[in-house]
Amino acid sequence: MAEKSLADQMAVILRETSRNLLANGVYSAAYPLHDLLCEEWASYGVFYKYQPIDLVRKYFGEKIGLYFAWLGVYTQMLIPASIVGIIVFLYGCATVDENIPSMEMCDQRNNITMCPLCDRTCSYWKMSSACATARASHLFDNPATVFFSVFMALWAATFMEHWKRKQMRLNYRWDLTGFEEEEAHPRAEYEAKVLEKSLRKEHKHKETDKEKLTWKDRFPAYLTNFVGIIFMVGLTFAIVFGVIIYRISTAAALAISATPSGRSSVRVTVTATAVIINLVVIIFLDEVYGCIARWLTQIEVPKTDKNFEERLIFKAFLLKFVNAYTPIFYVAFFKGRFVGRPGDYVYIFHSFRMEECAPGGCLMELCIQLSIIMLGKQLIQNNLFEIGIPKMKKFIRYMKLKRRLDYNLEPFSGLTPEYMEMIIQFGFVTLFVASFPLAPLFALLNNIIEIRLDAKKFVTELRRPVAVRAKDIGIWYNILRGIGKLAVIINAFVISFTSDFIPRLVYLYMYSENGTMHGFVNHTLSSFNVSDFQAGTAPNDPMELGYEVQICRYKDYREPPWSENKYDISKDFWAVLAARLAFVIVFQNLVMFMSDFVDWIIPDIPKDISQQIHKEKVLMVEVFMREEQGKLQMETWKDKDKKKGENCNNHSPRLSLSHSGSLSSCHSYPVDV
Amino acid sequence: MAEKSLADQMAVILRETSRNLLANGVYSAAYPLHDLLCEEWASYGVFYKYQPIDLVRKYFGEKIGLYFAWLGVYTQMLIPASIVGIIVFLYGCATVDENIPSMEMCDQRNNITMCPLCDRTCSYWKMSSACATARASHLFDNPATVFFSVFMALWAATFMEHWKRKQMRLNYRWDLTGFEEEEAHPRAEYEAKVLEKSLRKEHKHKETDKEKLTWKDRFPAYLTNFVGIIFMVGLTFAIVFGVIIYRISTAAALAISATPSGRSSVRVTVTATAVIINLVVIIFLDEVYGCIARWLTQIEVPKTDKNFEERLIFKAFLLKFVNAYTPIFYVAFFKGRFVGRPGDYVYIFHSFRMEECAPGGCLMELCIQLSIIMLGKQLIQNNLFEIGIPKMKKFIRYMKLKRRLDYNLEPFSGLTPEYMEMIIQFGFVTLFVASFPLAPLFALLNNIIEIRLDAKKFVTELRRPVAVRAKDIGIWYNILRGIGKLAVIINAFVISFTSDFIPRLVYLYMYSENGTMHGFVNHTLSSFNVSDFQAGTAPNDPMELGYEVQICRYKDYREPPWSENKYDISKDFWAVLAARLAFVIVFQNLVMFMSDFVDWIIPDIPKDISQQIHKEKVLMVEVFMREEQGKLQMETWKDKDKKKGENCNNHSPRLSLSHSGSLSSCHSYPVDV
Repeated sequence: MAEKSLADQMAVILRETSRNLLANGVYSAAYPLHDLLCEEWASYGVFYKYQPIDLVRKYFGEKIGLYFAWLGVYTQMLIPASIVGIIVFLYGCATVDENIPSMEMCDQRNNITMCPLCDRTCSYWKMSSACATARASHLFDNPATVFFSVFMALWAATFMEHWKRKQMRLNYRWDLTGFEEEEAHPRAEYEAKVLEKSLRKEHKHKETDKEKLTWKDRFPAYLTNFVGIIFMVGLTFAIVFGVIIYRISTAAALAISATPSGRSSVRVTVTATAVIINLVVIIFLDEVYGCIARWLTQIEVPKTDKNFEERLIFKAFLLKFVNAYTPIFYVAFFKGRFVGRPGDYVYIFHSFRMEECAPGGCLMELCIQLSIIMLGKQLIQNNLFEIGIPKMKKFIRYMKLKRRLDYNLEPFSGLTPEYMEMIIQFGFVTLFVASFPLAPLFALLNNIIEIRLDAKKFVTELRRPVAVRAKDIGIWYNILRGIGKLAVIINAFVISFTSDFIPRLVYLYMYSENGTMHGFVNHTLSSFNVSDFQAGTAPNDPMELGYEVQICRYKDYREPPWSENKYDISKDFWAVLAARLAFVIVFQNLVMFMSDFVDWIIPDIPKDISQQIHKEKVLMVEVFMREEQGKLQMETWKDKDKKKGENCNNHSPRLSLSHSGSLSSCHSYPVDV
Repeated sequence: MAEKSLADQMAVILRETSRNLLANGVYSAAYPLHDLLCEEWASYGVFYKYQPIDLVRKYFGEKIGLYFAWLGVYTQMLIPASIVGIIVFLYGCATVDENIPSMEMCDQRNNITMCPLCDRTCSYWKMSSACATARASHLFDNPATVFFSVFMALWAATFMEHWKRKQMRLNYRWDLTGFEEEEAHPRAEYEAKVLEKSLRKEHKHKETDKEKLTWKDRFPAYLTNFVGIIFMVGLTFAIVFGVIIYRISTAAALAISATPSGRSSVRVTVTATAVIINLVVIIFLDEVYGCIARWLTQIEVPKTDKNFEERLIFKAFLLKFVNAYTPIFYVAFFKGRFVGRPGDYVYIFHSFRMEECAPGGCLMELCIQLSIIMLGKQLIQNNLFEIGIPKMKKFIRYMKLKRRLDYNLEPFSGLTPEYMEMIIQFGFVTLFVASFPLAPLFALLNNIIEIRLDAKKFVTELRRPVAVRAKDIGIWYNILRGIGKLAVIINAFVISFTSDFIPRLVYLYMYSENGTMHGFVNHTLSSFNVSDFQAGTAPNDPMELGYEVQICRYKDYREPPWSENKYDISKDFWAVLAARLAFVIVFQNLVMFMSDFVDWIIPDIPKDISQQIHKEKVLMVEVFMREEQGKLQMETWKDKDKKKGENCNNHSPRLSLSHSGSLSSCHSYPVDV
């Protein structure tokens, strides 16, 4: 309550001061709250302070107040997540030199000759040349990451609970506990459509019932929506697939011309350009999808504004989510998995070989992909779009109008883009956190700026929006919960399928002879007899390493060439697969159980607030009863005064308050007349 | 609303009639509602009718009314579940003759010699002798059961939603929408303990603060609780283990003496006696655990009655759940799994071999276990305990008192046992439904009787309980949800690990040569060379089948004797295991997603009720405003009348209703004085 009174006091003082100044003719007009917000909130200098949420609510209304409160809670909750993330990362850094698998990979004495990663142009290569990636992989692929993804799942559950409590507290402070959204008025578009329909109908048979749009009227729009969304999702997949083809073909083309020494840079070049293409496409499609979602919702003609907003958000979220995460899902779960084996590779369109992961494993690539897309999206969308474009629009407007008025500010276009940005970021923080423990840190840094940036935008760049009341953040809460649930299963799959955690455990407990990880690298590699290459797939330059190769190795669990069923999937493969799947089941159920437990032990309403609400209800009943009693006495007195001798039983109609909450407990209250 | 007015009318008519009769001196006293309930509710003749819930609530109060309403909804929801269950069962019956695996097992020409199921006393046996069990297994182990367990998971979600809506409807009809449980008074035991503590403290330092029991005071009780529960759970496990040992040793002992022909009846005898022992133990421990849970809760000294009840229910549920389901879990997931292989069996205490399942598979045994425990528990606990014991107690009381008064009725001891019984039954209906599709039918039959039985008990056998208000069924709802969630994962495991569904699929898609199930039985059997028997484990009578056996078969995926690593776990084992685990993941996530979807599309509050509540709130605000306005006018008139010329601004104190719900929208209501 201290915050409240402080904010109130400040507002009062300001109002008084400005009134004096106005009265003295010093100013002709004053916007004291506006200026206060400018100083105390919309400034980078105060980034370490709590936001003056009550003032924000006073100036912009509850709905925007709740957005900033939510953003504040989210940012605050990111602090512990970032700290733990940094510790996990540092643990990876500290243990990289003790990590036996990467030591084995780097050891020049383990003279392991690897099979070529592509047809003809690629040649055999030394395991130890992938040393750097193997060491880097360890930073993100160590037992601490498993702990971290459990931690982050619980963090997400705690965050949701914490927000629910904060929201309840704000509801109480902002006098919204009993607030219910009023039955919303139909949108003008809806009314027009209904009118049109009833006019059309009147020609046929004269019915003048209250018309409304039925499922039948809306069917074409629903169909368009369905087809449109399927098409957009298909488009996203097609583009991601196109980028894959680009990567494969460019890599092949570059590899032909490159000198052996420059071949390693080919991969870097191709990967980098491909990720940048992905990023540009994501940012571009994000804008396009926003417009398409709006158009699709408009043709649906939802009845109320609330309906419109929910449908729009749902569609926009679906499209943007697919857009942002498809390339990441590809790298996490598909890249390098269905490549076949040396001598029997899988080809797309009969000419492109499926991509392999870099020698250090797919996790490293996932990590790079994640960090570039996350950081690039944040930097470009936040800084360029959120600051640059409004400023530019303002300038254009200013040039056009040549007058310095508030009118050259941008109109307010709803909170959806602001929430959307944060929710997609929440996805980056939770969904793939097992492969990128620094995500919370980057999100935190971004949000510290984001809060003030948004504040500046609302205070200085946009026309002041009409204040709207709201009790909660609406459909976003459900979306957050959905992401939280999805995160558990995705992290389970990342740990068990993308990282080497499970194969390492299986080796340690099933195969290791002395209980250490020595020999693990050898265990994960299968052998291939170079005489088994199919025609036209053997490397052009088989002597690149300087010696003739008989047997090369590749990362897979397959039978050796000297086995009866050579190159068949081996027993180890199935054993490791079973272990991976078992881990997914255990991880998912354990984390879900723990999340439910967190959900259960943290009460939704803070105890002080619920007590306070209860007390006020009791108080209200008391006041109400006193009033009623007074009224009765007054009536009696009036009756006595005016119609003496008449029957006094004729009371004024009593309030029937039985549905108004705690008042029902007063039914038996003794009224002494 | 029709129900309401009907019930009201009936009550009114009855009241009038009885008043007349009483006035005329025909009766000296009348209990019309009681007799009405007796006829219209507590009678088996009306089993097909809806319960007169409003009358029940009028007579017994909301809490008991809600119990019967819940029981009614549950029973009603069991009807579709039973019908689908019967269809699934009939599908099994209809397809049993087309089922290739059981046909193969029954075919006398498939002269498969199986390895002995126990040491020395058991001999080789023919696969075809297990024909009957194989055919019976098919009734419960067919693709329709998979569908049925998905169906039942969604059924559980629908049931929960349906109940939420029904509860909301009752809340509205019973005027509870605004009802909040009042701050409960501390229990006498708690007060006594606090007094004791403050007295003890007063000796040391004179503080007269309001004392309360802290975590520290309660620590011994918590510790006792924890240890007690662990001990009880351990006891349950020990008893189940004891029954296993009984089964193993008796089977061995009987097998020695039995003639070859009588050997098949040994298994039946042993299984039957063991299940009956289990059942008796479960019913006995159920009573004991109920007492222990009460004692454990008493020493905890919870503050309020509500606290007491919740803690008691939680403990009692935990103990009774473990008690009822441990033997079933054992059969479903452990029996016959860790038995080793011929020649290298697993022994307990160096002398008892781990149990094998019957030749037809473990699913059949699970089914028998489930049906006996479920039916036995229902028959004995419901009929014997619920009817017999109260009647007996009544009789004893009657004999003692020799007076025919209401006092010889049993006192009401809370709804906990009634709910507990139903919740445990709900567990039987949902948890293992994949192995026993007739469970909903048995539950339905039981509940149709149960409703009237409980009704009779409440009306005629118990003293009329004090009416208690309640908005919902409290902690039971959470327990139901928990069981619903658990059911998904348990059914996933039953289908993939207990039934042969996955091995069959794997065979069909990975091994079958012509796309049919022919050869499946052969595929699931491994071979054993009888010369590899360890000393003292070979059968005493190797010639029992009439010929000498070289190679016998056993159900497992292991390398054949002619392989390099003979009797090692084979690749097929790991492949099937991976498929089983993958199925669990897919099933669990799919069903969870669908349940969430059901949860999401069915609104918690029926639309008509929410509209009605909204309308009433608006109406109330109007009435309130009219009252306020009238009061103001009256005051003005009074003021004018009494103190003409004085300042009229001095209004009577206004109600501060800002926290009372929708009233806040009236702040700007124009008051024309």
